[in-house]
Amino acid sequence: MTRENPFPRIYFGGDYNPDQWSEEVWEEDMRLFELAHVNMVTLPVFSWAKIQPSEDEFRFEWLDRILDLLASRGISACLATPTAAQPAWMSRNYPDILPVDEEGRKRTHGKRVNYCPNSPSYRKFSRGIALRMAERYRAHPALAIWHISNEYGTYCFCDNCAAAFRKWLKKRYATVGELNRRWNLDFWGHLIADWEEITVPSELNDDNKWYQPKMLDYLRFLTDSTIDCFNNEKEAILSVSSDIPVTTNMSGFIKKMNQQLFNEHMDYAAWDNYPAPGAEPSLVALKHDIVRGLKGGRSYIMMEQSPNQQNWQPFNTLKRPGEVRLLSYQALAHGADTVLFFQMRQSVGGVEKFHGALIEHHGAENTRVFRECAALGGELERLGDVFTGGTTEAKAALLVDWENWWALELSTGPNRDTDYMAILHKYYKAFYGRNILVDVIRPESDLSSYSLVAVPNLYMVKPGVSDNLKAYTKQGGCLVTGCFSGIVDENDLVTTKGFPGEMRDLLGIWVEEFDALPPDRENGIAINDPIGKLTGTYSCAHLFDLLHLESAEALGTYTDDFYKGRPSLTVNRYGKGSAYYVATDPEQALLDDLIGELCRQNGVEAPETVPAGVEVTVRKKGGASCFFFMNHGEETVRLPLKGRKLLVGKILPEKDGLRIVLPHGGVAIAVEERAL
Amino acid sequence: MTRENPFPRIYFGGDYNPDQWSEEVWEEDMRLFELAHVNMVTLPVFSWAKIQPSEDEFRFEWLDRILDLLASRGISACLATPTAAQPAWMSRNYPDILPVDEEGRKRTHGKRVNYCPNSPSYRKFSRGIALRMAERYRAHPALAIWHISNEYGTYCFCDNCAAAFRKWLKKRYATVGELNRRWNLDFWGHLIADWEEITVPSELNDDNKWYQPKMLDYLRFLTDSTIDCFNNEKEAILSVSSDIPVTTNMSGFIKKMNQQLFNEHMDYAAWDNYPAPGAEPSLVALKHDIVRGLKGGRSYIMMEQSPNQQNWQPFNTLKRPGEVRLLSYQALAHGADTVLFFQMRQSVGGVEKFHGALIEHHGAENTRVFRECAALGGELERLGDVFTGGTTEAKAALLVDWENWWALELSTGPNRDTDYMAILHKYYKAFYGRNILVDVIRPESDLSSYSLVAVPNLYMVKPGVSDNLKAYTKQGGCLVTGCFSGIVDENDLVTTKGFPGEMRDLLGIWVEEFDALPPDRENGIAINDPIGKLTGTYSCAHLFDLLHLESAEALGTYTDDFYKGRPSLTVNRYGKGSAYYVATDPEQALLDDLIGELCRQNGVEAPETVPAGVEVTVRKKGGASCFFFMNHGEETVRLPLKGRKLLVGKILPEKDGLRIVLPHGGVAIAVEERAL
Amino acid sequence: MTRENPFPRIYFGGDYNPDQWSEEVWEEDMRLFELAHVNMVTLPVFSWAKIQPSEDEFRFEWLDRILDLLASRGISACLATPTAAQPAWMSRNYPDILPVDEEGRKRTHGKRVNYCPNSPSYRKFSRGIALRMAERYRAHPALAIWHISNEYGTYCFCDNCAAAFRKWLKKRYATVGELNRRWNLDFWGHLIADWEEITVPSELNDDNKWYQPKMLDYLRFLTDSTIDCFNNEKEAILSVSSDIPVTTNMSGFIKKMNQQLFNEHMDYAAWDNYPAPGAEPSLVALKHDIVRGLKGGRSYIMMEQSPNQQNWQPFNTLKRPGEVRLLSYQALAHGADTVLFFQMRQSVGGVEKFHGALIEHHGAENTRVFRECAALGGELERLGDVFTGGTTEAKAALLVDWENWWALELSTGPNRDTDYMAILHKYYKAFYGRNILVDVIRPESDLSSYSLVAVPNLYMVKPGVSDNLKAYTKQGGCLVTGCFSGIVDENDLVTTKGFPGEMRDLLGIWVEEFDALPPDRENGIAINDPIGKLTGTYSCAHLFDLLHLESAEALGTYTDDFYKGRPSLTVNRYGKGSAYYVATDPEQALLDDLIGELCRQNGVEAPETVPAGVEVTVRKKGGASCFFFMNHGEETVRLPLKGRKLLVGKILPEKDGLRIVLPHGGVAIAVEERAL
Repeated sequence: MTRENPFPRIYFGGDYNPDQWSEEVWEEDMRLFELAHVNMVTLPVFSWAKIQPSEDEFRFEWLDRILDLLASRGISACLATPTAAQPAWMSRNYPDILPVDEEGRKRTHGKRVNYCPNSPSYRKFSRGIALRMAERYRAHPALAIWHISNEYGTYCFCDNCAAAFRKWLKKRYATVGELNRRWNLDFWGHLIADWEEITVPSELNDDNKWYQPKMLDYLRFLTDSTIDCFNNEKEAILSVSSDIPVTTNMSGFIKKMNQQLFNEHMDYAAWDNYPAPGAEPSLVALKHDIVRGLKGGRSYIMMEQSPNQQNWQPFNTLKRPGEVRLLSYQALAHGADTVLFFQMRQSVGGVEKFHGALIEHHGAENTRVFRECAALGGELERLGDVFTGGTTEAKAALLVDWENWWALELSTGPNRDTDYMAILHKYYKAFYGRNILVDVIRPESDLSSYSLVAVPNLYMVKPGVSDNLKAYTKQGGCLVTGCFSGIVDENDLVTTKGFPGEMRDLLGIWVEEFDALPPDRENGIAINDPIGKLTGTYSCAHLFDLLHLESAEALGTYTDDFYKGRPSLTVNRYGKGSAYYVATDPEQALLDDLIGELCRQNGVEAPETVPAGVEVTVRKKGGASCFFFMNHGEETVRLPLKGRKLLVGKILPEKDGLRIVLPHGGVAIAVEERAL
Repeated sequence: MTRENPFPRIYFGGDYNPDQWSEEVWEEDMRLFELAHVNMVTLPVFSWAKIQPSEDEFRFEWLDRILDLLASRGISACLATPTAAQPAWMSRNYPDILPVDEEGRKRTHGKRVNYCPNSPSYRKFSRGIALRMAERYRAHPALAIWHISNEYGTYCFCDNCAAAFRKWLKKRYATVGELNRRWNLDFWGHLIADWEEITVPSELNDDNKWYQPKMLDYLRFLTDSTIDCFNNEKEAILSVSSDIPVTTNMSGFIKKMNQQLFNEHMDYAAWDNYPAPGAEPSLVALKHDIVRGLKGGRSYIMMEQSPNQQNWQPFNTLKRPGEVRLLSYQALAHGADTVLFFQMRQSVGGVEKFHGALIEHHGAENTRVFRECAALGGELERLGDVFTGGTTEAKAALLVDWENWWALELSTGPNRDTDYMAILHKYYKAFYGRNILVDVIRPESDLSSYSLVAVPNLYMVKPGVSDNLKAYTKQGGCLVTGCFSGIVDENDLVTTKGFPGEMRDLLGIWVEEFDALPPDRENGIAINDPIGKLTGTYSCAHLFDLLHLESAEALGTYTDDFYKGRPSLTVNRYGKGSAYYVATDPEQALLDDLIGELCRQNGVEAPETVPAGVEVTVRKKGGASCFFFMNHGEETVRLPLKGRKLLVGKILPEKDGLRIVLPHGGVAIAVEERAL
Repeated sequence: MTRENPFPRIYFGGDYNPDQWSEEVWEEDMRLFELAHVNMVTLPVFSWAKIQPSEDEFRFEWLDRILDLLASRGISACLATPTAAQPAWMSRNYPDILPVDEEGRKRTHGKRVNYCPNSPSYRKFSRGIALRMAERYRAHPALAIWHISNEYGTYCFCDNCAAAFRKWLKKRYATVGELNRRWNLDFWGHLIADWEEITVPSELNDDNKWYQPKMLDYLRFLTDSTIDCFNNEKEAILSVSSDIPVTTNMSGFIKKMNQQLFNEHMDYAAWDNYPAPGAEPSLVALKHDIVRGLKGGRSYIMMEQSPNQQNWQPFNTLKRPGEVRLLSYQALAHGADTVLFFQMRQSVGGVEKFHGALIEHHGAENTRVFRECAALGGELERLGDVFTGGTTEAKAALLVDWENWWALELSTGPNRDTDYMAILHKYYKAFYGRNILVDVIRPESDLSSYSLVAVPNLYMVKPGVSDNLKAYTKQGGCLVTGCFSGIVDENDLVTTKGFPGEMRDLLGIWVEEFDALPPDRENGIAINDPIGKLTGTYSCAHLFDLLHLESAEALGTYTDDFYKGRPSLTVNRYGKGSAYYVATDPEQALLDDLIGELCRQNGVEAPETVPAGVEVTVRKKGGASCFFFMNHGEETVRLPLKGRKLLVGKILPEKDGLRIVLPHGGVAIAVEERAL
């Protein structure tokens, strides 16, 4: 594996902490890894204090030994710099490392990911250890991937950060006058006369909740500071080890860290997949598609998932038999090329002692979890590289903007319950429910290859975005937008051009005002004339745009309140295409029916028609199409094989041919060779 | 308008922030103000940093220009000192300005109303800017009212405040021994030997919740400190501009600031009316009546209301068509002489960017909101001064004490849910529901003009109050009191004379103990012998006084629990009058029926009998009585005109004469000339 | 009364604060004490500032006078050192006394119990005042008991504590290496190289929630520090007054203070009994039994209860007529030899001004509360010493470990709702419901005298405990254990021997994993073959152990989910005895039926069979058995007298003999003389 040529096989394994165990245990681990077909482990995350017990002392010997042991067994290392947890001596001797929290409290040593991203000492020591590791292991036969630090995401509000923030602002805005203008600092008399007057937004001045332009920039600044931490180590590594890919793992969906920006700096996107017990499969799928979109569809790394229960949920339900397998294949189906777990061996003490592991506190290979994982490892081994590096070809796109997430939820008003991820999920489900493959990309991405594009609630419209959407639609594209769009610019300043701002001519409407109601009060969308399945009345809630038709026509109207009869669903013919506007937060069925109809009209089809509850995706590699079938439903279903070659799953002959049998939780992979 | 001769017309307009806009926009604003009949704007609230960009630099030119522009259009200025938000340089160079919060955290610059009321620097600079403004504008033709700062209400717990608190205490109590006694510092060994030992009550010692006598005095001290801030500027202004009225706006009902005391220092009472969406009209009416009572019934200023949605509510519902008009007339009906909005033009950035405005981000005069407001402005213009300065003649009074609010809710026990404003509202509704005009005044006010006086839950009885109530009753007055009354003195020390303390002989009862129950457990009040509509059994909840009759007689008794059969409603004949005691928190119907009956017995009548849902008030001026009719109900009603002259509203002829037609949300004003 | 010979009579009275009152009031109090049969008062808790108004000034004269007055009336003093509330001058001049809270905030003077337990100044001054009091009053005729401080339970996180914590750790673990191992500091790279690197666990590093081994030791350290505070004063007292018992009162069940350890240092266990309104009688009974167990069954002190309402509850319901009497006898029935109240006279100001008192703010002897208490005092006086010092002979034991409480609830995962006290209560109720007397003791206590031992959810198994349980069972004992047991050692490190760890062979099972579900999802326990009343299916919730039978047999199995049919209730024959395992959190009925059956099988019987709702206990003294009957039910019941002598209660003749009549809330005490 190099930075250019990834994934010779599906990597299977995960986080391993040999430093918590004696070398006798290591031998036992190797035996179990072999039984489970583990071919990659991630280490030594968090071992900085072990490797560098004091400023001038380094102990790599134990790491040498375990890496040699891994290499001898043919197991690759995802080699981590240990910089997510600085040693206690470092916090003690270099207190600039310790962050100040949003309440202005200087933190003390403990926990993890507990450092200031702008600490000079942290930058110096983390670069140092990264360089030493790169020099020592760049040619180690086990080395496959560099993994920098872990789950970045500290906030800090210390004086070092304040100074760096001012510098960052100066670079962005050049003059105090421009800053005053772009932050609208005339409001509430916040005008500044000197850069030094800028404070950081925090609980100590409430600007973190009450002065959105400042807080937005602070979030951008913290993302940039964190990227600098990453690049600081990455540069050190690349200076001596230039051909091994470098990445880090993003924790679930830490909102405060702009992953769309961060991933530009990583060779592969990588994330940790920890669905809450009972999470909808569509939500997990959406997140996978978001991650796949971060690097333009390149296959990515699922860096962590739990082989069983988690420990930080209120109720840490066991993963049911087959559940880990289903989730693992879902990752592969959406573009991942790894199935990595946190963790290989369960620790005996500390906060994660009850988190699931391949090797539990007791039982070795004789546990349900081990058996399930080992069987999965065997399957993956047999799959080889049949789809690694393969890509997903989607005709539909969902446009997502991380900063829109920040801005939309920072806003005070109109509705406290606004939840961007929930809105995205609702639109996504309309595709997912009919197995339409979707690329999740940015509003400024090239849209020319898509037949249908949805962009829900694009509150913040950044420069170039409206032109991009217009060009797409003008050329015949079909665009679906959601309510409360086109409101502010990248500084959260409201447009004075009439909502939806620069998209007003594209959508052919003017939104005069927006009503907000508590969750228990609803309105309805009455469809004027049936369009396919889109007919009758649908409920809607939360936000209600009151709009005027300019060039658009109304497809649906409100059923209640003083705006009864006014448009709630519109379409505007724009160039060769059409732009739809859903003026409120509709029930799922409306989006299902609307998007279903638009897919039909625009020739956007599922790879295969299957019963409800079955998820289908396709990854293409070379001349082959790999079909993934996953049954999230309760009932067993049977699918026609259609002459494909079954790689995973069960077949039964029926009178009309061979059938793939998918029980509850079942998975099948079938490959179809294409004439080249 | 002078300090003595107010309100030549109804002021219509509100907060205006030209400093957020270019001068081209000012011209457009003037055009729109004219269209909307705006005749007063409030400015330049929050513009301190603009006016004084550094310690020795002052820039008034822009303000000169806008004031001249206003004057040229005949628009008055409610001229504000900008001292609610000090400039950033001031916080930076004079850190004594920044407050310490209740958790002991020194705040940083940001937000607004973010200064220590005892900061010497703040006092110096705020006096300075007020003086400069007064000198510069005292003779400006636009000047109508001086408006000091904005929505006072900071808490501070810094060392300057601590020192000032000790000084304040020394003045109040003279000796340490007296303080020890009045705060009951023997309790928990809190005795002090030296003034310097006094700490401020805060989260850092829990005395803010657990040592009521101290916390009560701290609230008094903070009110006094804030009044000092106000007077500090007021004196500067009056030193050069002695005939223009001076006021400030109180924010809704900030509990922590004693408005009954504060308003003594203002020339006119002024408040900001921000009902939550769906607030009961009676609650808004109560607040208006409280404000009218602050300056002895003199007409007051509604300084702010939103012309549409707010932004800080969880769900910022639009004001429905007609709602702003109805709320505006309700203010006038209760004694206001202004209809002022926050805000004239919506800001594009910052926390309030989605707060309603006369001029929205887009649409100019072509918005629903503008049209409604402009129509209202036209109506008000036509009304001229017909009722400005007019007064309300009420025969009923509701006695309210701000410090009783503090003390009642600070107390730990007997019932966590005690809510003074809710109790007041319940009693008030019994009057409001039958359109009995009510003066809301203090327990120590002159009561001789009232036929019926209600004083709910007067937990704290200050010196002179019981004598006042006794004198009133003795002379034939009818007094209604609520449970949990007569418990403590002004230091929250419990009486040892038996509850209700000094009112024991007045009420003819001794309350031995009080039960408290969770909200889901109720008792009942069974009326012994029907008195008019007061009959049968009523439910009651929360608090249950267990009392002994001394000279009183029982009108109702408890229906349940171990105190079944004991008195829950009593009357005591006292001199020529009667004193009623409602020994628990009764359902609304009991108060409706009891107070209805007492009104009947005491000749307290509504100005007019109207269908339910219609609110009626009367303001008298010179020889004229202005009747206000407001329909809060859903159905259209018709009212007889009775030969009055209709100033606002619609008339239709019916067979028995002319009728005022009041649709849902409708308003009518009719004037009746009195023979002088 | 001496340290060896306690309780010549039932002490009746309680906390008295004469320092809050004038000497005239004292005389009135003496009159009322006599009326109420008060024979002991506790004082002068919290009077430090009164006694020592400055560092070198001491004023004992007032205390001399009140003690003399008490002695002259034959009232004993429970003489308190006033060290729970240091004087203000002390906090001011010796700031090391003020604690730092869990959020890192230095507290200011105020409240009470607001000192650092490791403050050198506090130690010095508290020892000093204790010594002076002992010297002055050791021979005072009123002196009966020394009462040190009040309701210990401060947390502190200051630098003095941090230094003391490091010292404490060094003593416990000797080397840094051992600490690294015992805290599993390899996890998250927390390894330390120097003792000075250890920080205290707090909100500032989240180790208070996230690093259990550290937090557990901090809780131990704080308990030890607090015991040191107690012993610091105790030693001073005993140095001059060696024969008077020394104790302190534990506040309810302050979880953070290990009372099992603390009470070892007290001459008598003592606690404050403040049941929430509506608390189940069984929960109060459990707490009494816990306290009786703290000193091996020796009779204990109920130091406080409220004679009426409390003040810190959300809803401070009055105690119903008879309720105080019932609660008082319940205390005596379970082993207390005192009925002491907080408080004798209600204070007029401060947080507790509405807390119940024998003497209320007004009414003297003419209040319901006084009358009830005085009647009770008379009854107790007539009882003399008939059962004081008497013991409870139980054949059943409930094993409780305070540190298990900490560890179980500190753990992140598997189930957030884990509540040790609720689990204990559930098991206890199975005994209580059939009036089986229970000793609540520690897992390491001698079990040889018990026929049935229950040890619910013993998550933490300390050295020696499993051997103790095995020895007990092997000799024929019957052991019942609950789910999630045998998981960790005393450092919260998970066993690698397979759950339930060292108890695996005792229970004959291996628990492979544990499922956790939210509260609305249940499973069932189907009993395979009926065992007495134990039959059919019972619901279960929260936690579900998935186990393998090794030598045990399954008595019940799960009814649902993927583990349907797997054992949920097992028994293992071990030596001559049996060990039961309840693998989940069952509904109450299962425990009732299981424990009911095991009682039957093992000859564990109630002292007497009575109708449901009636509680029965027996205390034995000399040759006499004192039977206590308490009717918690709504209906009056009649019980046969069986020839006993009735000391308290009513008798009625019926045709089959004399009957004790117990109305709702009624109490009877009957004594049965045993032939010696």
